[in-house]
Amino acid sequence: MDETKKTSRRAFLRGSAAVAAGSVAGTAAANGPDPLITELQDWASYTGAGVDETPYGLPIRFEQHVVRRNVEWLTASPISSINFTPIHALDGTITPQGCAFERHHSGAIELAKEDYRLMINGLVDRPLVFTYEDIERFPRENHVYFCECAANTGMEWAGAQLNGAQFTHGMIHNMEYTGVPLRTLLNEAGLGSAGELSDKWVYVEGADASSNGRSIPMEKALDDVLVAFKANGEALRMEHGYPVRLVVPGWEGNMWVKWLRRIEVVDRAVESREETSKYTDVYEDGTARKWTWVMDAKSVITSPSPQMPIPHGAGPLVISGLAWSGHGKITRVDVSKDGGITWQTARLGRQGEAKALTRFYLDTEWDGVPMLLQSRAIDETGYVQPTKAQLREKRGENAVYHNNCIQTWFVNAEGIAENVEVS
Amino acid sequence: MDETKKTSRRAFLRGSAAVAAGSVAGTAAANGPDPLITELQDWASYTGAGVDETPYGLPIRFEQHVVRRNVEWLTASPISSINFTPIHALDGTITPQGCAFERHHSGAIELAKEDYRLMINGLVDRPLVFTYEDIERFPRENHVYFCECAANTGMEWAGAQLNGAQFTHGMIHNMEYTGVPLRTLLNEAGLGSAGELSDKWVYVEGADASSNGRSIPMEKALDDVLVAFKANGEALRMEHGYPVRLVVPGWEGNMWVKWLRRIEVVDRAVESREETSKYTDVYEDGTARKWTWVMDAKSVITSPSPQMPIPHGAGPLVISGLAWSGHGKITRVDVSKDGGITWQTARLGRQGEAKALTRFYLDTEWDGVPMLLQSRAIDETGYVQPTKAQLREKRGENAVYHNNCIQTWFVNAEGIAENVEVS
Repeated sequence: MDETKKTSRRAFLRGSAAVAAGSVAGTAAANGPDPLITELQDWASYTGAGVDETPYGLPIRFEQHVVRRNVEWLTASPISSINFTPIHALDGTITPQGCAFERHHSGAIELAKEDYRLMINGLVDRPLVFTYEDIERFPRENHVYFCECAANTGMEWAGAQLNGAQFTHGMIHNMEYTGVPLRTLLNEAGLGSAGELSDKWVYVEGADASSNGRSIPMEKALDDVLVAFKANGEALRMEHGYPVRLVVPGWEGNMWVKWLRRIEVVDRAVESREETSKYTDVYEDGTARKWTWVMDAKSVITSPSPQMPIPHGAGPLVISGLAWSGHGKITRVDVSKDGGITWQTARLGRQGEAKALTRFYLDTEWDGVPMLLQSRAIDETGYVQPTKAQLREKRGENAVYHNNCIQTWFVNAEGIAENVEVS
Repeated sequence: MDETKKTSRRAFLRGSAAVAAGSVAGTAAANGPDPLITELQDWASYTGAGVDETPYGLPIRFEQHVVRRNVEWLTASPISSINFTPIHALDGTITPQGCAFERHHSGAIELAKEDYRLMINGLVDRPLVFTYEDIERFPRENHVYFCECAANTGMEWAGAQLNGAQFTHGMIHNMEYTGVPLRTLLNEAGLGSAGELSDKWVYVEGADASSNGRSIPMEKALDDVLVAFKANGEALRMEHGYPVRLVVPGWEGNMWVKWLRRIEVVDRAVESREETSKYTDVYEDGTARKWTWVMDAKSVITSPSPQMPIPHGAGPLVISGLAWSGHGKITRVDVSKDGGITWQTARLGRQGEAKALTRFYLDTEWDGVPMLLQSRAIDETGYVQPTKAQLREKRGENAVYHNNCIQTWFVNAEGIAENVEVS
């Protein structure tokens, strides 16, 4: 046990925080008795709320700021098509469905289970249509995976722009999915007559007006893709694709087709709108990079951050954040307080499965001096999260997608954080 | 690959379920074209809902039956003090906070973070009072644990009584908690002057009117107990103890004190109301067993079950359920279709940490013959979940707590399930 640190932490707590045990413990209290301790409170005097009132509960009213939010200038239409998870206010790794970001291309649709159909056609031995009930009859699996929009952090290419982890990094969520492996359904339709599978693709589309069609190489389709119907134990929410969505672990979120309607086995990529006009990465020289499916290793400090100032002065401080990689597990996260000059290895909190969010903590003492906070994720392939400068060398400043650069928060002496760049 | 099974599954799907791919695939369709495939649907024609409408989302209206429910005759008062998780309708392992069962002794109270105080006193070197902010300054951890009420399945001692897994086994939930280990806070207050720790206890109480005080042996307090402030990523819900509750992994739910207000280090158990008049186990001969903290290995089939009939006839069927043990990990679950005469080993779905729910599946073919479905959990200590007859030998029929017996569902030829007992 680190006695020095322990003493320091204790000294701090006794010196400045609301430690007024005096009247109770029989020693002198510096600030006088704390009425919250010495007086009988209403909540200890009367019966509280009954459970009948909450068949499906919501957060307590004191937490009403912990909600999905959008950025008005990002969406000109009266209804927004994107919002952001309040990652700054969350901890652990699971994202509740109620505040998990949503993105749609033509609105969230209401599709009842009895109206649901999933077709598998194209180069299969036997085209099939499944009802929702049919899908529940195949062996299913449970996995926790992150889903990140390719455009997450996309507004930050040209400079530090949005002042909050929710807005710079909140197009991500992490849930426990239950579903049937896509390979199970493909095998049910039969791939025997498709010939060599390594050059085949599946084209997946949703039942909404956009259809949001995307091509997925057969190798991935037969690997870990799920046809999912539950998230965090319960049915998918409408905005997350009820009753069935595709889960494409580690790959960009727009491929996780919601309200999944059709899977066609094809002999080449379809080159749909969503993989030509959109979701390709334009380089500074004007060339475009396509098929950038995997979300590379990335991390962000969620607290402190612009929406989460340090609520106290110097002393013990927990710096916390999230790390993830579409290539597998996170093996290490480093944290810098000086804009990347020196680094300390963070403690990994709960590490989920591969391709799931990992929580990290740096338990530290803050001396009250301003900080340039950064985090840097390293995944099991050895890949190290790059700086923004390193990314810009290849991608320029006008890119949109796949910005996995190291994020910097400037924290001033008052504990207020701000989105900044370091050169 | 088991070709027999595959053919059987496929034959089934083409023969009886709504597989009407004919008009699309160019082969004859037995039931004629399916308008859900051949006609343009409204949801594919118009823009759906925008995201502005759902800052904090709720389940889609089609899932409004998946809510906490109570049993009216269990609670005579106008407001119920217990309700049940809809485990029959969930899958995977995580329980969403919104439908996680609640139990209180004097109502759920509204306690703001700024009004929160946690006192540690008694045989400590230095009594301390922590604000909510103070607690967030200590190193925290994340763990998934189940929380089961000691009275779960308590109405079933004298016979098969409640017709649904939600009511027989729904006083349980499983969440990812974030909190500070209790030992960290105890060490902060200092245990040096308490003397020999092995015979010491902590007495924990809540800020509600009942205070719900319980004694916990110091060995457990210094092991894996958490002072928790987040569940499934977000703040605890009011009814789950906002802003801070105790998490006592593997031990009965009433010890997971909500709205945690005080922790006193004491040299013997307090013998409070909640551990004498309540939460002791009366044997048939009138003697009482106390300090029955650990929830022994247990399991239940959640689907099919009385609230979840088989929605189709014979053919492929996924039998699914939950298993858990307060002693550690679940190593095996067996499923019987004939009331315990023959058993098949189930496939474990997602297995969480020790003292967390494990999902199990039996992927089977149902021949349409009535079944007596049972599941039997085995944990890492080698303990095997007992039959109700085995439990009754010691406990009689008038017990309330710690009923971890094997549950039987009778499933008739129509797929309707009912709570029954087998001799």
